Order: sequence, then C-alpha cells, then structure tokens
Amino acid sequence: MAGASGYAGGELLRLLLAHPQVEIGALTAGSNVGSTLGEHHPNLVELSDRPLRETDAEVLAGHDVVFLALPHGHSEELATRLGGAVVIDCGADHRLEDPAAWRRWYGGEYPGSWPYGLPELPWAREKLRGAERVAVPGCFPTVTTLALLPALHDGLVEPDLVVVAATGTSGAGRSLKPHLLSAEVMGSASVYGVGGAHRHTPEMVQNLGTAAGEPVRVSFTPMLAPMSRGILATCNARLRDGVDAERVRRSYVRAYEAEPFVRVLPEGQWPQTSATLGANTVHLQVTVDPDAGSLVAVGAEDNLTKGTAGGAVQCMNLALGLPETTGLPTTGTAP
Amino acid sequence: MAGASGYAGGELLRLLLAHPQVEIGALTAGSNVGSTLGEHHPNLVELSDRPLRETDAEVLAGHDVVFLALPHGHSEELATRLGGAVVIDCGADHRLEDPAAWRRWYGGEYPGSWPYGLPELPWAREKLRGAERVAVPGCFPTVTTLALLPALHDGLVEPDLVVVAATGTSGAGRSLKPHLLSAEVMGSASVYGVGGAHRHTPEMVQNLGTAAGEPVRVSFTPMLAPMSRGILATCNARLRDGVDAERVRRSYVRAYEAEPFVRVLPEGQWPQTSATLGANTVHLQVTVDPDAGSLVAVGAEDNLTKGTAGGAVQCMNLALGLPETTGLPTTGTAP
Amino acid sequence: MAGASGYAGGELLRLLLAHPQVEIGALTAGSNVGSTLGEHHPNLVELSDRPLRETDAEVLAGHDVVFLALPHGHSEELATRLGGAVVIDCGADHRLEDPAAWRRWYGGEYPGSWPYGLPELPWAREKLRGAERVAVPGCFPTVTTLALLPALHDGLVEPDLVVVAATGTSGAGRSLKPHLLSAEVMGSASVYGVGGAHRHTPEMVQNLGTAAGEPVRVSFTPMLAPMSRGILATCNARLRDGVDAERVRRSYVRAYEAEPFVRVLPEGQWPQTSATLGANTVHLQVTVDPDAGSLVAVGAEDNLTKGTAGGAVQCMNLALGLPETTGLPTTGTAP
Amino acid sequence: MAGASGYAGGELLRLLLAHPQVEIGALTAGSNVGSTLGEHHPNLVELSDRPLRETDAEVLAGHDVVFLALPHGHSEELATRLGGAVVIDCGADHRLEDPAAWRRWYGGEYPGSWPYGLPELPWAREKLRGAERVAVPGCFPTVTTLALLPALHDGLVEPDLVVVAATGTSGAGRSLKPHLLSAEVMGSASVYGVGGAHRHTPEMVQNLGTAAGEPVRVSFTPMLAPMSRGILATCNARLRDGVDAERVRRSYVRAYEAEPFVRVLPEGQWPQTSATLGANTVHLQVTVDPDAGSLVAVGAEDNLTKGTAGGAVQCMNLALGLPETTGLPTTGTAP
Repeated sequence: MAGASGYAGGELLRLLLAHPQVEIGALTAGSNVGSTLGEHHPNLVELSDRPLRETDAEVLAGHDVVFLALPHGHSEELATRLGGAVVIDCGADHRLEDPAAWRRWYGGEYPGSWPYGLPELPWAREKLRGAERVAVPGCFPTVTTLALLPALHDGLVEPDLVVVAATGTSGAGRSLKPHLLSAEVMGSASVYGVGGAHRHTPEMVQNLGTAAGEPVRVSFTPMLAPMSRGILATCNARLRDGVDAERVRRSYVRAYEAEPFVRVLPEGQWPQTSATLGANTVHLQVTVDPDAGSLVAVGAEDNLTKGTAGGAVQCMNLALGLPETTGLPTTGTAP
Repeated sequence: MAGASGYAGGELLRLLLAHPQVEIGALTAGSNVGSTLGEHHPNLVELSDRPLRETDAEVLAGHDVVFLALPHGHSEELATRLGGAVVIDCGADHRLEDPAAWRRWYGGEYPGSWPYGLPELPWAREKLRGAERVAVPGCFPTVTTLALLPALHDGLVEPDLVVVAATGTSGAGRSLKPHLLSAEVMGSASVYGVGGAHRHTPEMVQNLGTAAGEPVRVSFTPMLAPMSRGILATCNARLRDGVDAERVRRSYVRAYEAEPFVRVLPEGQWPQTSATLGANTVHLQVTVDPDAGSLVAVGAEDNLTKGTAGGAVQCMNLALGLPETTGLPTTGTAP
Repeated sequence: MAGASGYAGGELLRLLLAHPQVEIGALTAGSNVGSTLGEHHPNLVELSDRPLRETDAEVLAGHDVVFLALPHGHSEELATRLGGAVVIDCGADHRLEDPAAWRRWYGGEYPGSWPYGLPELPWAREKLRGAERVAVPGCFPTVTTLALLPALHDGLVEPDLVVVAATGTSGAGRSLKPHLLSAEVMGSASVYGVGGAHRHTPEMVQNLGTAAGEPVRVSFTPMLAPMSRGILATCNARLRDGVDAERVRRSYVRAYEAEPFVRVLPEGQWPQTSATLGANTVHLQVTVDPDAGSLVAVGAEDNLTKGTAGGAVQCMNLALGLPETTGLPTTGTAP
Repeated sequence: MAGASGYAGGELLRLLLAHPQVEIGALTAGSNVGSTLGEHHPNLVELSDRPLRETDAEVLAGHDVVFLALPHGHSEELATRLGGAVVIDCGADHRLEDPAAWRRWYGGEYPGSWPYGLPELPWAREKLRGAERVAVPGCFPTVTTLALLPALHDGLVEPDLVVVAATGTSGAGRSLKPHLLSAEVMGSASVYGVGGAHRHTPEMVQNLGTAAGEPVRVSFTPMLAPMSRGILATCNARLRDGVDAERVRRSYVRAYEAEPFVRVLPEGQWPQTSATLGANTVHLQVTVDPDAGSLVAVGAEDNLTKGTAGGAVQCMNLALGLPETTGLPTTGTAP
C-alpha cells in the first residue's frame, strides 16, 4: 500500500487487518519513509514495527492488490508500472470521465478514467467485478450521490440540487495547515470551498447527471465540524408536481432494499454520523417539505470508512471475485 | 430576570454584569428556586450567592427592565402584570405577526406581537426606540435573516430559499434529553426538525418575506454540531438574471456598512463561529456560484450572544434611549 | 441481556454481534421497555427492530449466558433466579471481597463476591475458567490496576499511590444529569469524587493491595474530559531505593509479554486513548522521574470496551472454555 | 507587541482592546510578516486591517509598553534594545532565578531573571509595582503554584508534590505538529513530557520551594485534553500530622480572601475550566482524603488568560501604577 502513514492509509490497514482473505504486504510513504507504522498509527498494534518504505514501483510490485492513498496527480505514473496487479486508487486521478472537467478542476494532462468504485450505482457494480483498476469515489460524492440517486433516477425532483455537508476534519488528511489545528477547530464550525470551488463538485455532477439522464446543477457547500470523522450531508431539491412523501419513501426503500451497506432509516429517525463511525454504511432519511416544495434527503457516513477505505475494500472484494461484504463492518462504534 | 438558571439567562447576566448602566435585580427560576445562582453558573462569580426566587410578578415588579428567558407560553400572562416596566422577552410568544401562523406553529390563543428585536432590519429599529415591549428573535432567524436580507431587499434572487444551519447545543437550552447528553453529541453531527418542522421557520418566512416585498419559501434544516455555542448558517438562493458577484457584494457591503454588529468579511475570508464567540456580532460572507446559478451567503454568530442575550441587551439599549452599542462586546473569544 | 438500552449494554451488543460463537437472545431494559433497540442504538443496525422487554428472570431464563448491565443493587436478586446460566455482572454488586468495605461504600446487605473478571491479574484467570458467575471490574480499576500491578508485585515502589484519571463521559452512563449535558462538557474539564469519594477506590485498594502483598493507600481523583470514550490514567508512586528505569521497564515488559490485551508501548511512546477506541486493549507506558523520586505509569483504555463490555466478553470466553481472545478486537478506531 | 499572530498574542490583543487605558501600537510577527492581523485572528474585528511587521527593535521602539510573545531565546536580545519601555515577556527567558536550572532546562547563556509576574505570591507584588521588566509565568506554574501555595506556606503538607494537569491545546501555541491536528486531538486524551521532562517543572519547584521555605520535589505530568483552552490541575501532597480539612480550608480562604483574581469555591463545588474561560481568574477547591492521608487541591484557569495574557496585563497594570484589576474580566464565558 502506498500512503500508509496518512489517515486513509491507516483506515485501510485497520480494515484489512480484520479481512479474512488479506495478507498485508509492503507499506510505503512519502516524507515518513524510514519510520515505523506504529509512530503514525498507534492503534494498529499488530503492524507497529512495520517499516515505511519508498513509494515506488519496485517496492509495490509483486502484490495481488495495490492500494494507492496518495495526493492527486501521483497515481497515474505509478499505476502504469504495476502491471497485472489490481490497483485501487483512493485519489482523484481517475474519477472524472470528462477530459474537459478534468482539465478545469485539476489541470494538466487527463489521465483517463477507471471503473468508478461506487457499486451501489446501478451502472457501476458490473464494471467492478474482476476489474484491474478502480477509482474510489471522493468522500462527499459517495454520500451525496446515494442520498439523491433515487430521487433523480425516478424523476421525482428538478435537476437543481443544493447540498450542504458537514465533515469531520480527518477528511482533509494529515496535512499541517493552521486551520486544521485542534485549537482552531474545536468549538467552531466553518465553511470552505464555497460557491462551487470544491473539487468534489464535478464528481457529484457526473454521478447525479447520469442518474437523472439529464444535466444537473449542484450547489455544494462543505462545512468543517469539530469532530474527527463523519460526514452529514443535507440535500435539497425542488419536488416535481404530484410527488408526495409516500412516493418518495417508496422510491428510496426500493432503491436500497438489497444493498448491504445503505440503510434507509425507519420513518421519523434521522441520521447521525456517530452511528456509522468505523462502519462501511451510509444511513439515509428523506422527507418532503410541502411549504417549501422541497425534497430533503440527509445522509451520514464515516468519511474514512464507507467514504474512502471501506469503499475501497468493497471494490477490492468485487475485483477479486469475493463476496462483496467480506471483512466489512456494518456496526458503528457509538456513542 | 426570569429564567436565570438557564443558558440564555446566564448569558444575559454575563453581559449585564459588564454593562455600565445596569444594576442586576431579582433573579427567578422554575424548578431551581431555592438554590443559588452559583450552583448553575459558576462563571458568574460576582453573583454566586444570589438566590433564585419564584417566577412571579411580585418578585419581578419594581424593576425598570425585566428580561424573560422562559419556555414559550409563559411570557404573556407575566407581562400583563408587569405594568410600566420595559419587558424584553427572549421567548417565542410575541414574534409572529400572523395569528394563523401562530396557531399553526404554537397552538392556543394568539398572544399578539411585540416590536421585533432585530434592529438591523430597516423597518425595525425605530419601533424599538423607547419600546416598552420587545420580542427578541430566535437564534436561527437572527443570522439567516441578516445573511439573506440584502439579496432579497435588492431583488437579486428568487424567493425560494434553502437554509442549512449548524448549531451548538446550548441552543436547545438546559433540557435533560438523551440526545443532548455529551456522550451522544461529541464526535457526531445530526439533523432535527427536517422538512419544515422547526418553529423558527415561520419567523424566517416573516422576516424574509417583508424584506423581499413578496412571499418567500424557506426550506430550513437545522443541524446539531458538537460544540457548545455558535451557529453557522449556509443560505442558498437562485440568482436572478444578470446578477453577478460584484453586484451582490456591493449590495451586502452597503446594507451593513453602518451596522456596528454586522461585519461583511473581506473577500475570500469565510465565517467561522469561534470568531463570534461571546460577542454580539454576525460575520457574513457571500458569493455566487455561476455553474449552479446560485447565491450562497454564510453567516456566523454566537447563538447565545447576538442570537439571544446580546440581541436582547441591544434592544434594551434602544428601549432605554442609551447608545445602541453600550456594554456589548464585538470581539470574540478565540481560539 | 439486561440493561440493553444503556451505553454498556450497547457496547456489549456491538461486540457480541461480531463474536462468532454467540447468538443474541432476549434484550431487556428499565424505563425503555416497549421501545425498540434501534431507537437507542442506531449504530446496531442488525438489531434495530429488537424489542426491549421487562428485566425479569422469566424473560432472561433459558439463555446460556446472561449479561447484567444494571445500576448497582439490582444484580443479586436477579442472579439468584437465573439458575444454571453463566451470569456476567457489569455492575458493582459482587466486586468487593471485604464485607466491611461493601457496607461502607454501598450500604445495605453484602451480596458476596464473585470471581473477579480481570484475567490479567495473576490470581484471577484460573478462577474465571468455567466460572458460573463473574464480577466485571469497574472501568477505572481495570486500567489503574494494570498500570501499577508490575510495580507493586515486584516491590519497586512504596504502597502510597496517587492516581489521576481522565474519563470520557460515557463512563457515567446514559443518565440525565445537568453536568453531563453536552453544552457543559464540551470545551471544559472538571473533577468529581475528589478526596477518596469515588466508589472505584476500594476496588483499586483491593486489587493493588493483593498485588503488593501489603495494604496500600490510593489517592484517586477522576477527571471528566470532553470526549465520549476513553480513560487515561496517570499513576504515581515513590520509587524504592535502587530502582531505576531499566529495572522498571523490565518488570512491565515481563509482566505483560504474554497478555494479548495489554501492550507496553515502545520506549518514548506514550498512551493516547484514541488508539484503544473500540478495542479490548490497554496501552501502557512507564518511566521514572529521578528528581521527584517517582515512578509514573500511564494507561489508556476504552472505558466501554476493555473497561466494561470487552472485559465482560473476555470473561465469557473463559467461562465457556473458548479461546480467550475470540471475537475481541485489538485494533482501535483512530483518528 | 511582538508575536501578534500567535495565540498568546491574539489573547493579549483581545484583552488590550477592552482596556480603557491602552492604545494598541505596532504589531510584529515572525513568518507571518506582511499579512494582516485579521487573517490570523478573525475575532479581533477592530484590528483586522493592521499589518504584521518585522519583529525588530526599530519597529517596537517608542511604545510605553512592549509585550513579547515569542519562542524562548528571542526575548533577551530584543529587550536590551528597547531602552526605557516597560517590557513584559510572556516567554520563558527570564523566569528562572537559578542559572544552573536555566542551563539544565534551556541550555545556552543564562539571560538573568526579571521580576516574576505572579502578583499573588506574597513576595512578588511589590517587585512588580513600577517594574520595567516582567517575566510572565508559565501557564502550568500559575495555576499549580496558586493551588499549593497556602498548603506549603502554612506547613500543612510534606514537600513531595504530585501534579497532574490537563490542558487545552492552545497551550502548545500555533505550531504545526501532527499531534496537534484536530483529527488526532478530538475524542482523545494523551500525556506528554512525563517523568519530569516538561520545562515548567523547575518553575514550579522554584515557586513552591520559596513558599515552603525548604526544597520541594514535584512530579509533574501534563495531559492534553480535547479542548481549545483551559487548564485543570490536580495537586496532591501528603498531609502533616494533625492537619484536618477545617485547618486546610481556613488556610486557603485566608490566603486568597483579598485576591481579586483567585476564588476559593464554596465547599462541595469543584472547579471546571469553562467557568474561567476568557477570564483572568483561578478557581480553587481543596480537600483532604483521610484514607490516603493526602491533601488534594484542584485549580482551574484559562491558560491563555490568567495563564498568559491576562496575567501579563495584570502585571502591566502594576508596572504602570494603574489599579491592578483595570480592564480584566473575572466572568468566564460559559457554557
């Protein structure tokens, strides 16, 4: 695995340690090469003495599966040198199918797209079975796509979407920036990337537009909440004529009744992120606001688990032909 | 003051202790009668030994100003028996001007409306000068009204509004409910009152409709964030044709340039609740999202200060003919 | 299981759901009878619809193992009516071996002691194998006993001990008390039970006195920290003459090298509670302070896991003759 | 002021803005030169546009008072070039009176000691009146010295002291270190500097030894708690023969009854850091544990206010001949 000293890397290792079919191989890092894993992840007791090695193709060669948890822009070159291994990229490099969107949001040469690792999309799961390359979705697109998918797929709402999502700060990775210091974060809520500036926006537009069968517009505002993990996404759309609460609920229940990792909560119960902490689940609830003429769908997930590392392991299971749920917890650690 | 043992009452006393023109009189409570204030508010050192007395008109009589920080439904009867005192009600009883809205959202007999205590509304300040009765706004309506007022007043957006606001848990008061226990709240984000169920919605509709000069629709979703104080409100509306970022910014700057307690942040800087902690200020920023066709305005306040007790003191200043800013801090306690 | 709607009950169910040899039977509660488990523990998705039944012997009869997670004083009578089942009591009723200590700290008739569920004590494990009754230790005694055991057992320190331990608020259970409200807890640290008033003190005295082979004195101060889970215990004792850091470390390493759930960290690395979150582990570090003439041992655990429910499952494994580690995670969920 | 972009600098400015006798002059910084204050302290609205200038003597010259909030080792040279100004150093450079202690703990040439800025020490206040140089104490020594002073001064305890103090993370300053990232801190408690390694230890030894009139030994363990501000210090010492609770309480009440910023709480009430947040106060409580033979004193303060910036302003008042309490809040911002 490349990027083992970061938060996504740590969560991947936590899940893989409990996976009955996986043996953990080489671990690589960037600036932390030469240290042991235990210095960065004291929770991963069984791997404490593992050395962190250089992130290069020789070190990573010879594994059946290679996970990449790297800053964007570093996956493509590495992947081309990993030959026959299944490569699962937790970064953004291969998520966007539109070269123009890629150039606008990331710049540089378009590295192409890989099978998109959100098996709950009706068009995605089959491409993931036996895949050699997987692009794991971003944490925000995972939960917001699932929260709006049934409404758009079934034509219940207009394609103008407003998403406000609070995230724990592990979503920003282990980056040493002043606004991520604990003294700034605790006791405070803030926004960032407002006005369509967050790079997860085009990924939502891509997913939700495919679901709707027409172009969608997404106004996305991410909020930083004083917690380590978790995303709570509030999604709003204008109801189409004649759509009522019962119709909406039916659509959501049907969409996910066979999905092992998506749970539509009982009526009246609303998602809270703690219920998904450490689990590979998304909890959803949906209602209509008759006065405002809106559908409001709310989704909760752990950004590091279903939002990144759990989703990645779910895709690995599909790629290797294992049962999709192997080794993945559905019970959150709460309170 | 009635309701001194609660959070709003405590914040009122914190501010009034620093107010140069105020002497604090009788303190009353509900179930905490007989205890001292220090048992409930150890921060209010100078008032520690003050006894909490019964909430009735005899105890409260004889003061120039009486603050009511009571559960809704308890203010009206008390106020009628307080004769010539200036009565400032932090509760909801006298905020709504529409009897039908009152009956729908609160039920029971409509107690009438009092001058609405948000002096920054163009139509409100004059009615508050010398007023004998003041209805202090709700914490969510304060910040969301100010965040959307210029856009609606100047006709920049369509009257369909989406508001998602994260609040610290002191907004729920000192009520012993399981979902407010610290072990449930810390490390978790949740929503409540989704789909138009929160009682602050009609108050926003009232304020923003007046600002727009036409009926508005508000889809409001409150979010509970793991922090004690603070509201961060994200407000979204469809831009009208031809409105661009510069036009929007001009409107906001002009609306608030003379307001001592509303600050439009420098371009590129976004509100964070900690910067307003303990201060009587609202911090605002606004932008447009050209792809989504939206205006996004974000406001931060301390729900207990500008959102409740500070706003109440600001109204008291106006009612008594004092300078509006007397005794009110504008510097937040951060980090 | 009795007491399923509380925090200890919820954690037990979280662990038992992942235990390969357990099928979960009847769930009972106190005031929450008639509701479903999902209303109290939305993280336990697979048991959401399970009803909470009356806590009485008929409902609990017929199970191989019964866990009691009840307020103290309720276990004894129930246990006598549970005949041949293995009864594992997470409450305090059967922890103290000294009737006088029981009467002083709890009052009322002494219910007798059961095998003490801390298998890492040299004298405890054998009594737990095949036991029909187990008294699970308190959360503070678990970590403090393990942090001081080698030093006392090997005679490295004087028997005068100072323990200061910070705990997350789930340790207080789901009790509706003002000081446990999130707005009071977040952003604040406090102490309680100072001066030897906490009921876990006699349990520490009992364990550590047995370890030392002589009476010990324990000054114990619990601290409430703004977090949901976790205990960090700082333990201080006067070094005996001639004891140096190397001697101390050797003692600790040897004491725990064969223990699957106690980890003495590498030199220079100090415990943090997050590394044990949700895991059945205690992380320890120890050093000497030559200037002060002290040994300082620090231990971290998750109060709900190794400190309560995980310890209980570990004892169940011993009681049933299963491998002691069956179904128990050692990897914490961090960050 | 030098060091304006850090946390101590920001808190100094917050307090000085409210001080009736102070006009704020030049602000300097290290790596943040060229930015405005508002980028670092959005709470200090009135100073938002102030530029941060180079930290050198020319910029700082010409002010009546210069505050230094710099990393240790930078104050001495600067101070020698500030001629007649009152220089108040929030750093460690001039706190230790023993050159040998300085060399052991900080290394390098001993810069000498300045009047020690804890006016509540019986021997300190007179030296601070009219002083031209002041060494502001460390945050931990402030609260622990005050918590143990009466007991040592009045000979109630043996001179072997155990101090465990939980601190909010602002105490570490705005330093970009991984263990201070919010995702690591939230939900977790940890220790650091264990075994006498924290540089505040010799300062406690100095203060408490003077109070006792004999050498003392201090075992000090700092704990990092998931909060931004606040220190809660638990102090333990062996009681001398014949000392009981009443004797202890009398000693503490008498010691502080005339002190405006130290409050011995009513019996039975224990300190919590939130009650001191943003205030220049220390809250104390003390008791005896007859079983353990110990005195336990607990103190709470805001590390940035009484622990640093508030203490500095208190000393400035004394140095300038102003009333000691001018401009200093005693009411905490809670909840």
